[in-house]
Amino acid sequence: MQFEAAAAKVSKYAVSESGDTIESVERPHGGISFVLADGQRSGRPAKLISNLVARKAISLLGEGVRDGAAGRAAHDYLCTHRGGRVSATLTIVSLDLVSRTLVISRNGPPVFLLGPDGARLLDEASEPIGIHAGTKPMIEEVPLQAGLRVVAFSDGLLDAGVRYHQAMPAEAWLELVAGWGETDTEELAGRLLERALALDRGRPEDDISILVVGVYARRRADGARWLAMKVPL
Amino acid sequence: MQFEAAAAKVSKYAVSESGDTIESVERPHGGISFVLADGQRSGRPAKLISNLVARKAISLLGEGVRDGAAGRAAHDYLCTHRGGRVSATLTIVSLDLVSRTLVISRNGPPVFLLGPDGARLLDEASEPIGIHAGTKPMIEEVPLQAGLRVVAFSDGLLDAGVRYHQAMPAEAWLELVAGWGETDTEELAGRLLERALALDRGRPEDDISILVVGVYARRRADGARWLAMKVPL
Repeated sequence: MQFEAAAAKVSKYAVSESGDTIESVERPHGGISFVLADGQRSGRPAKLISNLVARKAISLLGEGVRDGAAGRAAHDYLCTHRGGRVSATLTIVSLDLVSRTLVISRNGPPVFLLGPDGARLLDEASEPIGIHAGTKPMIEEVPLQAGLRVVAFSDGLLDAGVRYHQAMPAEAWLELVAGWGETDTEELAGRLLERALALDRGRPEDDISILVVGVYARRRADGARWLAMKVPL
Repeated sequence: MQFEAAAAKVSKYAVSESGDTIESVERPHGGISFVLADGQRSGRPAKLISNLVARKAISLLGEGVRDGAAGRAAHDYLCTHRGGRVSATLTIVSLDLVSRTLVISRNGPPVFLLGPDGARLLDEASEPIGIHAGTKPMIEEVPLQAGLRVVAFSDGLLDAGVRYHQAMPAEAWLELVAGWGETDTEELAGRLLERALALDRGRPEDDISILVVGVYARRRADGARWLAMKVPL
């Protein structure tokens, strides 16, 4: 089998810097974690917050701290640092090679879970981090198997098209994705981004970030781990 | 213009875990840094070292610490942590959007620099980190321009084929790469890996990691930042 991941990020129209942060880190006991953080507001102030939160979570995950504890720590850190006045959403998606599971920790928007047994919306109420004492992530753990895919995003996806009264609820997005069948992660993230940009008529109302991970039956012949990145200058 | 990066990593034959670590992090003032660390020996002990070194460098770079200071700190940290008895090589390649340059910091193998003005080997003598007091990186800064490419790797590339007396010196690898013209980063890293695996007859004598970054005149229509990853399970 092969684990694959793709992430795409665009900024709000006419704002040079996205307020969202997506980072990844190797887990010392085996696997990879992805962190998607969305800071309150947009542009530079939001970026500082999402960067702070993502760095805290990534640095703990990279030291072998478990996902739930890393999420709680990121909350406590933001709460302490900004006196409970600034919020952020935080989603952590991990390939855990010890438990052979995907682990999804949510303090933010819903997450799509697609597998051989059908599609499911992870949308139990969860609080953003940074405000209320005791905030903790909603955690879901799913055994690795071919065909499994997870789609996480910042709220800009659900808000796409809101200005034109065309925003789609999470259920409609999930149905759309489920209808595409077993596309690969880059293709899936690309189609979601394309649809969101179309709903916003090419001028995103908010930062939009999309993270897709999946487990596929195929495997590269070279047996190598691969990483690729593209950044417009 | 668009910045692109690709990294590939295979482990020594019959060793499940590569002793090399490649990580990336967003620079808070703008840009991305890549860290390639190779720990002494192979397998788990090497991995613990390269992970320690990479995490220290990444965490500092993510806080806005400059490349040279992050490299020195990683050395001091390893030296303190292991009493000067364990070495690692460390290469940092950064897209710095403040100075609009690529910054290459080396405490290890040579790095290839290819641009519109020709190809160059960065191979001034540099010490591995972790052993001698005062070790510092060799730093090179190159203004961003289309056609610029940087190729960094762990010593497994130069050792490929050594068992069959077919190992190629850095100059020969550079000549090979220069002859390929302006390939994209994934293609370039893929061809290098393929050639190295062929020299080792499909059974790598050592961990091999390859990092290629480049600046291209093209730009994606969606204006998005993209990240992709593949991990064999």
